Amino acid sequence: MTGTAGAVFFLSDYGLRDEFVGVVHAVLHRLAPHTTVVDLGHGGAPFDVAGGAARLARAAPHLGPGVVLAVVDPGVGTDRRPVAVGVDAGPDRPAWLVGPDNGLLPAAADRLGGAVRAVVLHPPDAAGGPAPDASGGPGPTFDGRDLFAPAAAHLVLGGDPDALGEPADPTSLVPGGPGPAAPVGTGPVLVSPVGWVDRFGNVGLAVAAPALDVLGPLGAGLELSVHVGGGGRPSGPAWVADRPPGAGPWQALRRVRTFADLAPGELGVLVDASGLPAVVLDRAPAAARLGVTGPPDRLVLRRAG
Amino acid sequence: MTGTAGAVFFLSDYGLRDEFVGVVHAVLHRLAPHTTVVDLGHGGAPFDVAGGAARLARAAPHLGPGVVLAVVDPGVGTDRRPVAVGVDAGPDRPAWLVGPDNGLLPAAADRLGGAVRAVVLHPPDAAGGPAPDASGGPGPTFDGRDLFAPAAAHLVLGGDPDALGEPADPTSLVPGGPGPAAPVGTGPVLVSPVGWVDRFGNVGLAVAAPALDVLGPLGAGLELSVHVGGGGRPSGPAWVADRPPGAGPWQALRRVRTFADLAPGELGVLVDASGLPAVVLDRAPAAARLGVTGPPDRLVLRRAG
Amino acid sequence: MTGTAGAVFFLSDYGLRDEFVGVVHAVLHRLAPHTTVVDLGHGGAPFDVAGGAARLARAAPHLGPGVVLAVVDPGVGTDRRPVAVGVDAGPDRPAWLVGPDNGLLPAAADRLGGAVRAVVLHPPDAAGGPAPDASGGPGPTFDGRDLFAPAAAHLVLGGDPDALGEPADPTSLVPGGPGPAAPVGTGPVLVSPVGWVDRFGNVGLAVAAPALDVLGPLGAGLELSVHVGGGGRPSGPAWVADRPPGAGPWQALRRVRTFADLAPGELGVLVDASGLPAVVLDRAPAAARLGVTGPPDRLVLRRAG
Repeated sequence: MTGTAGAVFFLSDYGLRDEFVGVVHAVLHRLAPHTTVVDLGHGGAPFDVAGGAARLARAAPHLGPGVVLAVVDPGVGTDRRPVAVGVDAGPDRPAWLVGPDNGLLPAAADRLGGAVRAVVLHPPDAAGGPAPDASGGPGPTFDGRDLFAPAAAHLVLGGDPDALGEPADPTSLVPGGPGPAAPVGTGPVLVSPVGWVDRFGNVGLAVAAPALDVLGPLGAGLELSVHVGGGGRPSGPAWVADRPPGAGPWQALRRVRTFADLAPGELGVLVDASGLPAVVLDRAPAAARLGVTGPPDRLVLRRAG
Repeated sequence: MTGTAGAVFFLSDYGLRDEFVGVVHAVLHRLAPHTTVVDLGHGGAPFDVAGGAARLARAAPHLGPGVVLAVVDPGVGTDRRPVAVGVDAGPDRPAWLVGPDNGLLPAAADRLGGAVRAVVLHPPDAAGGPAPDASGGPGPTFDGRDLFAPAAAHLVLGGDPDALGEPADPTSLVPGGPGPAAPVGTGPVLVSPVGWVDRFGNVGLAVAAPALDVLGPLGAGLELSVHVGGGGRPSGPAWVADRPPGAGPWQALRRVRTFADLAPGELGVLVDASGLPAVVLDRAPAAARLGVTGPPDRLVLRRAG
Repeated sequence: MTGTAGAVFFLSDYGLRDEFVGVVHAVLHRLAPHTTVVDLGHGGAPFDVAGGAARLARAAPHLGPGVVLAVVDPGVGTDRRPVAVGVDAGPDRPAWLVGPDNGLLPAAADRLGGAVRAVVLHPPDAAGGPAPDASGGPGPTFDGRDLFAPAAAHLVLGGDPDALGEPADPTSLVPGGPGPAAPVGTGPVLVSPVGWVDRFGNVGLAVAAPALDVLGPLGAGLELSVHVGGGGRPSGPAWVADRPPGAGPWQALRRVRTFADLAPGELGVLVDASGLPAVVLDRAPAAARLGVTGPPDRLVLRRAG
């Protein structure tokens, strides 16, 4: 990776109204002036670690060489660990992910081959940042600015990772969310948490694409029930037969390959352009149709008839 | 155009909450790491081709050398053609516009001297993208990422356009929206669709600046009626005399040169900084005052008295 | 400052839906193609000079070498002066701030050591911009595009400031907002306008950090009263005793060092990561809890008991 070709890929929950994102860019530019910074989105809900992790994972396979800088960090200032996570996805992909050890990074690291090393970052004061104040300790920290961005700049310029902190066992990292729900039971039923809702109202399912196979081949007629709020985590097929209060009525949908396979207003489930399953309408927001807003809403899909 | 001076000018309806824009940036950076990417806005309404076309056309005369990449593409996955449109606006302006052939590009191309050539892009799989899946064809495509961005990178680096696809007749491109409404009748009346509403609440008219001349000189007292929703397309002056149900009352406004010519709260019509007519208030949102939200709302302007 | 290392730091109220920000980027890239442009935020309320000034001031100490370009400019087209303000913050910080002389720049200039010189910019036509139209004068101007961006590009490339306009006395610049409110009275009471509300709902106070010292040491128990809308500017301690109509009830809060010192739901006041005082909750929006939306809301803090 050359100094000019490696980029910093930056995702946060800072939003774009305040100066936070710009200040992080300014710090990166000061420390690594010839490095391109690619914004992967800053507009998710504040403190939404799972949503940030999902966006990061969807983006990961398309990133070039460089460093991922991800900051959705409700635990800033607590004892959650700040980390750099090394992956081995080859010279054309990012080599490091930098951010809080709170479940934000693992899904993206997995899509880049998995974590092979980790460094717990020294706090900013030890790294040359502002000294503790007279009260005996640092005040509120802006780790994106003072810790994570400098670490990302250091790594994208080819600096020694071990200079940033102490090595850690990559298997000790806090895992991501609950992970894909296993299909429930042996029958043709899939229970899935909603993973995300995108700008176009497509409803991503928090399961891997092969989970759709229990529902039958392309074209299969299916039914879907929405459980807004998620409710108790289902434990088996009985949950489907005896649906809990609040589960919505069954609605028809079809397993399709692409949006254009759907008639106007017809619900479908497909593997989207990120390789992940989603319930969609063609050119219209399925989320609004279903009354789904995101996690922890839950969908139950089953074969029709 | 050198590799470093030419930019990619990128407009879409992807929004900034999800990772879509960032992924396209990442692809561009991977393929053309020394090229600057200038974002022209990603926040319009999803699938709003006309709004994207209007923004692109207003920006076009101010762009430097490079390639315009524009993706507002409700027809992605259908048989709408993906295209690169060549213009001949000189060495200091963009040379190509890349995007769907759905009316998004023509207004901008016109402001850059008009389309002089066109190439229909090969689909991503033929261009080296992912192979068809086991179902016999590609799943949902993300053409911004997989087709249009690679084509823009190819062109901004000086690659051969003919390597991207098949030549096409530039006059075969899908035209932009209905185009400027002709002034209706011979009298001092102008009927115009609303072209756009900007962040400051200025109401752009979908007519060229000279159309204002039927209304008289600067300073002329005028009247305006709002027809929310547009209604039937007017066919003549009779429509003005016998206004359809839903047309609003006449409100006074004045033809002025600039915002500062208006008294507080006074409505005016002027040629804005993009060279296009707009109905405005000084430092306040005219759209809110008029109850206008955008197309297909319609305004009727006439001389007062 | 070298041509490649100096950046343009760009803040405006243009929003990101329209093409305005992108057009300014395009102009900068045309004039200074090797210069990085760092966006410091474009999403504040339209025409909110005080909010823009606050964001700019918070960002200023973290910027590297280059030029600040700031455009929140309700007076565009009037006789407000367009200026470049020189500061002397050393080689690692910005050397110039460019924008309207309307109070937007002074707070940031102060955090960069204070204005040491100023230039009133020639209007765009004199600077080589579009000629006056047939009506005898320029129409609506887009000074961000036509005046401020070219001036910023000129300066970041090391051009002669005097070529941009006429020298002016830096003490003649329009000052920022009303400035930090002085603590009222001799007792342990602090009356402060709300300076801003950030994305996370933290409520910034428009006073300097030492003003908190009247409230006692870290850990001190305090009380807070909200005066939505600000009301008459308080003139003394009597205002606190005889609170005006509309002042809210006293609520408990605590002076703390950092967010993590707060219990769930506990209000606190601290010096934030920008070095400025803020009333906060841990991982929750204090602004919503207090019913505060921004200036001219006002907070009164006093020692409890």
